[in-house]
Amino acid sequence: MPSTPRIITLTSDFGSQDYYVSAMKAVILGISPQVRLVDVSHDLPPQDIMAGAWVLKNTAFLYPPGTIHLAVIDPGVGSTRRPVLVQVRNQFFVGPNNGLFSLVVESEEHRVFELNNKRYWRESISTTFHGRDIFAPVAAWLSNGEPPENFGSELGELTTYRWAKPISDDEGVQGWVMHIDRYGNLITNIPQAFIQKYGRESAFKIYVGNTILKDISDAFSDVPDGEAVALIGSSGMLEIAINKGNAEHMLGVEKGAPVSLVIQKSVS
Amino acid sequence: MPSTPRIITLTSDFGSQDYYVSAMKAVILGISPQVRLVDVSHDLPPQDIMAGAWVLKNTAFLYPPGTIHLAVIDPGVGSTRRPVLVQVRNQFFVGPNNGLFSLVVESEEHRVFELNNKRYWRESISTTFHGRDIFAPVAAWLSNGEPPENFGSELGELTTYRWAKPISDDEGVQGWVMHIDRYGNLITNIPQAFIQKYGRESAFKIYVGNTILKDISDAFSDVPDGEAVALIGSSGMLEIAINKGNAEHMLGVEKGAPVSLVIQKSVS
Amino acid sequence: MPSTPRIITLTSDFGSQDYYVSAMKAVILGISPQVRLVDVSHDLPPQDIMAGAWVLKNTAFLYPPGTIHLAVIDPGVGSTRRPVLVQVRNQFFVGPNNGLFSLVVESEEHRVFELNNKRYWRESISTTFHGRDIFAPVAAWLSNGEPPENFGSELGELTTYRWAKPISDDEGVQGWVMHIDRYGNLITNIPQAFIQKYGRESAFKIYVGNTILKDISDAFSDVPDGEAVALIGSSGMLEIAINKGNAEHMLGVEKGAPVSLVIQKSVS
Repeated sequence: MPSTPRIITLTSDFGSQDYYVSAMKAVILGISPQVRLVDVSHDLPPQDIMAGAWVLKNTAFLYPPGTIHLAVIDPGVGSTRRPVLVQVRNQFFVGPNNGLFSLVVESEEHRVFELNNKRYWRESISTTFHGRDIFAPVAAWLSNGEPPENFGSELGELTTYRWAKPISDDEGVQGWVMHIDRYGNLITNIPQAFIQKYGRESAFKIYVGNTILKDISDAFSDVPDGEAVALIGSSGMLEIAINKGNAEHMLGVEKGAPVSLVIQKSVS
Repeated sequence: MPSTPRIITLTSDFGSQDYYVSAMKAVILGISPQVRLVDVSHDLPPQDIMAGAWVLKNTAFLYPPGTIHLAVIDPGVGSTRRPVLVQVRNQFFVGPNNGLFSLVVESEEHRVFELNNKRYWRESISTTFHGRDIFAPVAAWLSNGEPPENFGSELGELTTYRWAKPISDDEGVQGWVMHIDRYGNLITNIPQAFIQKYGRESAFKIYVGNTILKDISDAFSDVPDGEAVALIGSSGMLEIAINKGNAEHMLGVEKGAPVSLVIQKSVS
Repeated sequence: MPSTPRIITLTSDFGSQDYYVSAMKAVILGISPQVRLVDVSHDLPPQDIMAGAWVLKNTAFLYPPGTIHLAVIDPGVGSTRRPVLVQVRNQFFVGPNNGLFSLVVESEEHRVFELNNKRYWRESISTTFHGRDIFAPVAAWLSNGEPPENFGSELGELTTYRWAKPISDDEGVQGWVMHIDRYGNLITNIPQAFIQKYGRESAFKIYVGNTILKDISDAFSDVPDGEAVALIGSSGMLEIAINKGNAEHMLGVEKGAPVSLVIQKSVS
């Protein structure tokens, strides 16, 4: 049985009609011909660091130990933002130090290295495409077994954003729609734990746009076709959907819209 | 020479800006690190089971024997529709039992297994993402050599749709546009065999939208640039196209539009 | 250590919602089960040969020697345009002889073979999908080690287009926007060498749409957020961008728009 190749995943906002993704793959394969390449997404909204952080969080830790996640959403390329390598559990992340790795390091021990050893870069570095010239070769050399320490000096701190958390008190939770997927499902920033805190026994109402929901369902199909349903989605977050329909269009709700869960005062 | 890895193809309506496809691949690679992954399409129209069936039919049997086709267009996820494994010739299909495999089993012997052996599922099963939690691990274990019987009990019958067939009589054929590709080519549900039945000798007219065609051509370029042409497409179906143009836009025809082939009464 | 598999890259305008790309991969894997497949792009604008030529030029030579580039933008499929195999340096290109390889052979020695040995084609050849029926099997056999000569007879000449070059004289350069990427960056056909010719010492002005720029910057971030910047992009061409913005939308400029670089008469 052949040995298992290392995996490099690729996440970017490069889109699919340019040569950018291919250029990164070409550079990687020149250095690490046996590596396995897996595309996560290249169609993230341009320059949307939060979307990248969200996708990485939901997918990175499903990969086998030792996987390297090359992630390039890099509006500050060529500026003072630093290129970094981050190790979390047994997963490695390579990309710009601009908040993109905020969610994968959340509540996790991690190490950060600034990529300042130019020996692992391409010879000529453009100011606009560090994905090809710095991140791709570093990811490739890392997959070849170079230890993280070799790529640069350890940093005390990683740039992270704390995208506003939902606010909760005895009366309920106030969060918002942080992502809308291709089906129009509204994915909120309210995690399952917040819902469980109130228990399924308490009566509550969920307000989103002009819609009020009174229940957390188990599946889309718990409600009739075309009706709104709240459930805990596959990412562990509260989602609002339409069974066999598109909640974004049918409820007229956009990314960023507020979502409230209000506990009903019981009379007893 | 290393042994040839098994192939798992992936077909879905997940789109390319979410973590859904990557999550399935991560689960597969954790179980079957040597497998070869091939994306068929993840941009099928959301919840369009017929489009998925059409794509599978046109591509699955081109793959080497033993290929596993993971297909997830699953508007009923979490409802009573069952997860299944289908074997047709020497190809395997894993996905929901909702009609998605209608066209690959057509006129073919096949075996169907309900996926009810939870030993091959992920430990925690979401109600909205069986692609990650059931179908991906089953496909991965299958690629590792587990026999189909191990995944669940054999079913007598698969859910299939009979998307309406064209109607034919002595006067001609009545079908419709079942797919429009990226070039705007109108692909009908009228197979080559129907055309051959009338022979190329008979005079006939093809009606689509406001356009009338009098001939089946061999290639787009048999007509001048910008003119409509009818031919047998690469899928073996009657197609209406514009040479170096977009028939959907230029003829104003939509998916579902009727297409008639009418035999001309000969005077002899 | 296992031997390194050959690479076949795939470039087309097939889009991502059809079976076309998958059909080519299936055919390849049936012939060459060990080959590595890398998608360059399948979302090039339909029938836009220049876009394909541009992407190939910017990515092909980054790949390891021996890589095979399967490229299918083929509005003349089924007509008299010939299928070809082109060798440039140690890279191989397989596709239609319609100008698609114009930029990769530019100023490079190359050999061209017409693909007329049907032994390497699929048995039944459609008139509309040579990607599946001719180009894919030829690329696969080539990756298996068949010498280029076996696929057909050598041609003296390749069809190439000379997409108009920028015009330059003592007063400056007149070029245009040849590509707009997903970020809205305006990529011109004015190469770095033209800029260097005038030196960074000379004062000049760059005119694009209603905007005038007076400087070539090193990075997007050399100007404040939201302002226009000219720089040498990662492809070595003059680009006009907006720092953290979309130049296409904000400057109201389209593909094909003129871009002038005018030398300022110095008074000294």
